[in-house]
Amino acid sequence: MNVHNNVRPNMARLWSMLMRSAEIGATPGGGLNRLALSDDDATMRRQFIDWCVEAGCRIQIDRVGNIFATRAGRDPCAKPVLVGSHLDTQVHGGRFDGILGVLAGLELVHTLNEFAITTKHPITVVNWTNEEGARFEPPMMGSAIFTGHRTPAYAWDRTDRHGVTLGEELDRLGFKGTDTLTPDLFDSLFELHIEQGPRLDAEKVPVGVVTGAFTVHGHVIQIRGETGHAGPTPMPSRRNALVAASLVMLAVDEIGWQFHGEEGKSTTTRLKAEPNLLGAIPKFVELNCDMRHPTAAGADAMISAFRKRLPELEERSRCSIEVTESWTYGGVELDKTCTDLVRSAAARLGYATKDLLTEAGHDALHIARVLPATIIFTPCEGGVSHNEKENVTIADIEPGMNVLLQAVLARAKLAE
Amino acid sequence: MNVHNNVRPNMARLWSMLMRSAEIGATPGGGLNRLALSDDDATMRRQFIDWCVEAGCRIQIDRVGNIFATRAGRDPCAKPVLVGSHLDTQVHGGRFDGILGVLAGLELVHTLNEFAITTKHPITVVNWTNEEGARFEPPMMGSAIFTGHRTPAYAWDRTDRHGVTLGEELDRLGFKGTDTLTPDLFDSLFELHIEQGPRLDAEKVPVGVVTGAFTVHGHVIQIRGETGHAGPTPMPSRRNALVAASLVMLAVDEIGWQFHGEEGKSTTTRLKAEPNLLGAIPKFVELNCDMRHPTAAGADAMISAFRKRLPELEERSRCSIEVTESWTYGGVELDKTCTDLVRSAAARLGYATKDLLTEAGHDALHIARVLPATIIFTPCEGGVSHNEKENVTIADIEPGMNVLLQAVLARAKLAE
Repeated sequence: MNVHNNVRPNMARLWSMLMRSAEIGATPGGGLNRLALSDDDATMRRQFIDWCVEAGCRIQIDRVGNIFATRAGRDPCAKPVLVGSHLDTQVHGGRFDGILGVLAGLELVHTLNEFAITTKHPITVVNWTNEEGARFEPPMMGSAIFTGHRTPAYAWDRTDRHGVTLGEELDRLGFKGTDTLTPDLFDSLFELHIEQGPRLDAEKVPVGVVTGAFTVHGHVIQIRGETGHAGPTPMPSRRNALVAASLVMLAVDEIGWQFHGEEGKSTTTRLKAEPNLLGAIPKFVELNCDMRHPTAAGADAMISAFRKRLPELEERSRCSIEVTESWTYGGVELDKTCTDLVRSAAARLGYATKDLLTEAGHDALHIARVLPATIIFTPCEGGVSHNEKENVTIADIEPGMNVLLQAVLARAKLAE
Repeated sequence: MNVHNNVRPNMARLWSMLMRSAEIGATPGGGLNRLALSDDDATMRRQFIDWCVEAGCRIQIDRVGNIFATRAGRDPCAKPVLVGSHLDTQVHGGRFDGILGVLAGLELVHTLNEFAITTKHPITVVNWTNEEGARFEPPMMGSAIFTGHRTPAYAWDRTDRHGVTLGEELDRLGFKGTDTLTPDLFDSLFELHIEQGPRLDAEKVPVGVVTGAFTVHGHVIQIRGETGHAGPTPMPSRRNALVAASLVMLAVDEIGWQFHGEEGKSTTTRLKAEPNLLGAIPKFVELNCDMRHPTAAGADAMISAFRKRLPELEERSRCSIEVTESWTYGGVELDKTCTDLVRSAAARLGYATKDLLTEAGHDALHIARVLPATIIFTPCEGGVSHNEKENVTIADIEPGMNVLLQAVLARAKLAE
C-alpha cells in the first residue's frame, strides 16, 4: 500500500467552505436553521454542486435528492468509495453537524486534484437528503432509501407540519433526480462527523474511531384523561392528562439518571396536548421518548425499568398511559477493515485515537448494513450539538480531516 | 309588583331549540365543537336570528357581532332588560354551556307572546360573541367590548391559530354589524347558565343564586433551558426545559390540592415546547396556569405558595422559570337588587336555592361593572362541563327557567 503522508488537505479552504455554508440559513444565535428541502437547503445544495463541478466531479441526483459528486478513478471496474454526510440541519442547529462530513469529502477531492493524485477507485462525495428529520420524519431518510430499507414513494409522501410533502418540495426545488444509484455500485462509505458528545473534547483526543452504535429506542406515550372546566371542576374529580404527563416525563428523566453510570440517556423530546386551551383541563397528551444505551441489553433494561413505574403513575394521576415502541436503530458494528484503515492512518500521522460508539444516528449506520462503512469523529466544543452554540476550531477538525484523507486514499488505492 | 306565577314557559319548546342547536357543530362524542365565528357558529347565529324574528323581535348587531333581539315594551322611556349568554362553544364543548342562557331568553319572549303579556321595559335577548375564547383569546370578548373595557379594533385584530383575524371572520360571515349599542341604553342583565360544577347536582338544589365570582388569576410561565442532541448529551450536562416544566406542572397541581379544602383550584391548561422535535432536548417551554379561589386573599396565598416553590425547582432542573401574571378577573359582587328578585321568585315558586360564587368566567361578570347584573345557575350532571359529556335534563333546567322568567318579569314590570 502506498502511503502519502505528505498529502495534506488545505484546512483554510475547508474552513472557508464551512463558513460559506454557515451563511446559508444562519440564525441570530450563530447557528443554522436549514431544514431539509427548504429554500436555504436548496441554496446550499446548489452551492455544493457548483463547487463539485468546479472540482471536476460528475453530478448525479437520485429520486429522493441524494447528491453524488464523483471524481473519476483509473480502473473502470473499481467501484467508487463514498465520502459524505448531510447538509441539512435542525431548527436550532449548528454549523458543523453533517456539513463537515460533506465538505471534508469535497476538500479531499480538491487535495487530490492539487497533488495530481489519481486513485484506482473513483471517489464519490455524497450529500444524503434529510438526515436530521427535523422537518420530515423519520431522520436518516435519504440513506434509508439508498439502501432499499425504504422506498422513494415512502419518502415522497412524508409531510411537514404544514402538510407539504417531501415529494412536492423535491419537485419545486428541482432536486427530484432521475439517476438510479444503488449500494451494489459502490465500494464503501467514510463519514467524518463531529462527536456531538464531550468525550474527545474532555480527554483531548483528536480522533474518534467509531466502532459501532448505541442501541436507540423511540417510544410514543399516549396519556388519556378527561377534559373539563378549569374553574369549577373540583381537584378530586380531575383526570388531568398534563399532570400524568409530568409524572411520566420525570420518570423518563429518572431512568436516564439511573443508567447514567453506564452512559444511558433518556429524554422526552416532544409533547402534544389536547385541547391545549385556556380554561380547559387537558384531556390527552402524546409524548415522544428516546432511550439510548451502549448495549441492547442495557436499553432493554431501561425500557423495562420505565414500564415498571407506569401502574403507579396511572394510579396517582387517574389517567391511562399507553406506551408503544415507534422506532429503534443502532446496535450496528461498523466494518473492521475500514476501522483499521482509520486507526492505522491515525497512527502514521501520530494522532491518538479513542474507540467510541456513536450515540447519535448517522447515515453511515444505514449504509453499514449493505456496504463496508465507518465513521470518524472529531472533537467538538463541550460536546454541544443540535444547538446554535455547536462549535469546532480548525485545530479540532484537522486531525480528523487528515485521517479521513489517508484512510480513503488507502481504500481507494493509488492508481500508479 | 304584579306576580304572574301562573305564567310558565314551554319546556318542550325550549328543549327542542336546544336540541336543534345540538345538531349544529355536533361532535361524534355527543358534544359540540362550535368555535366562535366558525361556519357552524354562523349557522347557529342565523338560526337564532330566524327564531327571534319569528317571535317578533327586532334584530341589532354591533361591530363585534354581538346580537341583540328586542321584544318591545310599552314605555318608550324604559330601558330594555338584557337576557342572554353565548352560542359559541369549546373545541370539545357541551350542548348547554352558554346556549341555555340565550335560548332561555328566547323562550321567555315566546312565553310572553303566548300569554299576551306586555312589559313596561323592552326585553332584549343577547348573544355575546366569543365568550369561550377557544378560538380567539381572550374569552368573554363580546361583552368586554360592549362595556368599553376593550375596543372593537382590539377584537378585530385577534388571530386564531391559523392567523385568521376575528375581524376577517366577522366580514366573511356577515356579522360585523353597524349598530352601536352601549350599556347606558340598557337596564340590567339576567344570565341563566348551567353551574359547570357539582354542588347543585350533588345537593339536589334546583336553583343557584350567584352572588359573586371567584378570583381568577392567569399566569404565563416561561421556562428556559438549553437544547442539545438527545443522544450524546450526558444527563449531567442537560438543562431540559420539559423536565423543569414537569416539576412546575406538578407544583401547580399540588397548590390546587393544598387549597382544595377552601375550594381553590389550580390548573396548567396549555403547554408549548420548543423545538419539540424528535432527537432534540427541549430548550423552552411556555405554560399557561390558572388559579382560582373564592377570595382575593386566598388567590394571593395560592400564588405566593406557588412562587415559593420556584427557586428549588430552578435549582433541580437547572432551568430558569419566569412567572408573569397575564390576566385576572372575578372578585365581582353581583347586583343585590337583581339577586333578591331571583331569590324571591324562587321562593314564590317553591324552589330551594343555594347562594354560590361562580368559579367560571361569564359575560355577566363584565356587564356587572356597568349594569345591574345577575346569574342564575341550574344543576348539571356531575358538574361536568367544557366536555362533550356535559348534560342536563329538562327537570334540571325547568326551575331555573321559571325563576329567570319571574325575575325578569319582576324587573321589566308589567305594563298594565
